[in-house]
Amino acid sequence: MKPWEAYIRKVEPYVPGEQPKLQKMIKLNTNENPYPPAPEVFQTMKDINIEKAKMYPDPTCEDLVKAIAENFSVGANQVFVGVGSDDVLGMAFLTFFNSHKPILFPDITYSFYDVWAELYQIPYKQPMLDESFKICKEDYYIENGGVVIANPNAPTSIYEDLDFIKDILEHNQDVIVIVDEAYIDFGGESAVKLIKEYDNLLVVQTYSKSRSMAGMRIGYAIGHPDLIKAMNNVKYSYNSYTMSQVAIETGVAAINAKDYFEETKEKIISTRERVKSSLRQLGFEFPDSRTNFLFVRHNLVSAKELYDALREENIFVRYFNKPRLDNYLRITIGTDEEMDTLILFLKNYLSR
Amino acid sequence: MKPWEAYIRKVEPYVPGEQPKLQKMIKLNTNENPYPPAPEVFQTMKDINIEKAKMYPDPTCEDLVKAIAENFSVGANQVFVGVGSDDVLGMAFLTFFNSHKPILFPDITYSFYDVWAELYQIPYKQPMLDESFKICKEDYYIENGGVVIANPNAPTSIYEDLDFIKDILEHNQDVIVIVDEAYIDFGGESAVKLIKEYDNLLVVQTYSKSRSMAGMRIGYAIGHPDLIKAMNNVKYSYNSYTMSQVAIETGVAAINAKDYFEETKEKIISTRERVKSSLRQLGFEFPDSRTNFLFVRHNLVSAKELYDALREENIFVRYFNKPRLDNYLRITIGTDEEMDTLILFLKNYLSR
Repeated sequence: MKPWEAYIRKVEPYVPGEQPKLQKMIKLNTNENPYPPAPEVFQTMKDINIEKAKMYPDPTCEDLVKAIAENFSVGANQVFVGVGSDDVLGMAFLTFFNSHKPILFPDITYSFYDVWAELYQIPYKQPMLDESFKICKEDYYIENGGVVIANPNAPTSIYEDLDFIKDILEHNQDVIVIVDEAYIDFGGESAVKLIKEYDNLLVVQTYSKSRSMAGMRIGYAIGHPDLIKAMNNVKYSYNSYTMSQVAIETGVAAINAKDYFEETKEKIISTRERVKSSLRQLGFEFPDSRTNFLFVRHNLVSAKELYDALREENIFVRYFNKPRLDNYLRITIGTDEEMDTLILFLKNYLSR
Repeated sequence: MKPWEAYIRKVEPYVPGEQPKLQKMIKLNTNENPYPPAPEVFQTMKDINIEKAKMYPDPTCEDLVKAIAENFSVGANQVFVGVGSDDVLGMAFLTFFNSHKPILFPDITYSFYDVWAELYQIPYKQPMLDESFKICKEDYYIENGGVVIANPNAPTSIYEDLDFIKDILEHNQDVIVIVDEAYIDFGGESAVKLIKEYDNLLVVQTYSKSRSMAGMRIGYAIGHPDLIKAMNNVKYSYNSYTMSQVAIETGVAAINAKDYFEETKEKIISTRERVKSSLRQLGFEFPDSRTNFLFVRHNLVSAKELYDALREENIFVRYFNKPRLDNYLRITIGTDEEMDTLILFLKNYLSR
């Protein structure tokens, strides 16, 4: 072994969610939106003056921050933007969780929370979801260094209403509470409306799901101006320029395309509800999703078997080889046509 | 004070280099390239199918990695890409500097090295540059946890040849040596040719200077496959998708535009040499720059006075209010026309 090999950071070997490059496939494995970005985004791409790329982008991302602020009727000093919500969440962990008390998030939730906690040496505890995969809010009433709740939660797909979030906030006035709303647009009510009341609440959202722009990497946080200022101070102090000119310009176009956003969101919700009833008829069980995916198990056939069978057909869904999750599949809601193909295959497969 | 305010991360308040939005200005303050991206980049922007942005980008950035590898005649497993060289350098610090021994870099150098060291709790020492702002290579022969050398160094503009880099490598076989070559294309010889010989060498470059694409945020590292694998493992483990689809596609176009790259680089070098002699005639002193900027002081007038006078004219240069640097200006090499305006103004100002 080379001497320097001893000093390489030890990490869990992690393989990012498969992005197969097949021509013909149905990709329901990474919760992407089946619909393209808004027509306004296509137009903006045409209009972008890429000559400007010779200069650094605006480090304050002023245009994008303003557009997001207007969309949510908050001040521009209440919005932070980053390279996807992963970047935004990581920055929030780094900025706010320095108390040396453990932060709290569920044992089953978005898989990067514990990674960032480890990365920034933040102690953490993970209260268990109950039998039906629900968050027990009382678990978050103990002393802690901060709280992170994904709402709806992933991969469970379960949404809790704003009274639930309020209860957690009421019991956690001394720390920052992050509500990660990656999937909120598919039927939930956003906690953004609570930020006036709770200056310790940070709501994080993303362009990767409901806004059809996973490929552009845009996420944002909304909160009290003091929180946003603290995050920007940390960001500027160690990496000033992260959002490209193109991300800023197309990000503005996408957030302003309100009609298209409503329309595609409603289409996904309506497809989801239809798929729910078809899958129920086929013997699947699942929590009542308010996201763009379903978290399903079958009462007779194992998840692994179904996963493999679907893969054979170039239908990609997500399988988690983890305790408590290993008999579930996470299936993204695609177009009606894609879901019909999936359901037809499952119907045939299960009636062999 | 709110209780949670005590747990906000303390950082040096940092204001990113000014990006003024004036219509009429000469911007020589952030070492950007005065020439637009290659015509091939414009064409690629036109051709991009932004519909694909509904999906996550390729986390391995395969197309971009391959194009960079081909350009440098190395294997695709020897290239790591990131969101600007800041992202790449930060990732390298996190990946390689875990020995708890101090890493070494000069007291005057790129201003983010100490920031990342602090961020990741890496101890560090900063040997002083000598009187003429040169790195003393013997300072790097002591036991350490890693070495970081910017070559050419910034803001001094001084280049050291490959024998100098080799000496540092010979004395540091047990740790990773990072050579940050942000400015290498403006007249230096890249250490990329040493990576065959030294498996502990990581060379970092950027699209922000010689490739006219600061606005797109692309940087890369070249090194032994083991180093690249380690960096990718760390990257995937906590933020898988950072490079947007557009950055990947335009990045390929830019690195393949070899003729344009040579042509614009030579133009900048020739402008620089002409500006050197004009400034010398006006009483300026400076190290012999091999970068796209000059690090100058005047023998009679203070840097601060000149900085303010230039600003009045909407000519932006960089002034560092720091010990040892506070009588210097860092002046980016712009177009011939921009530099003529600068020189004419200085000539008139100094002959008042």
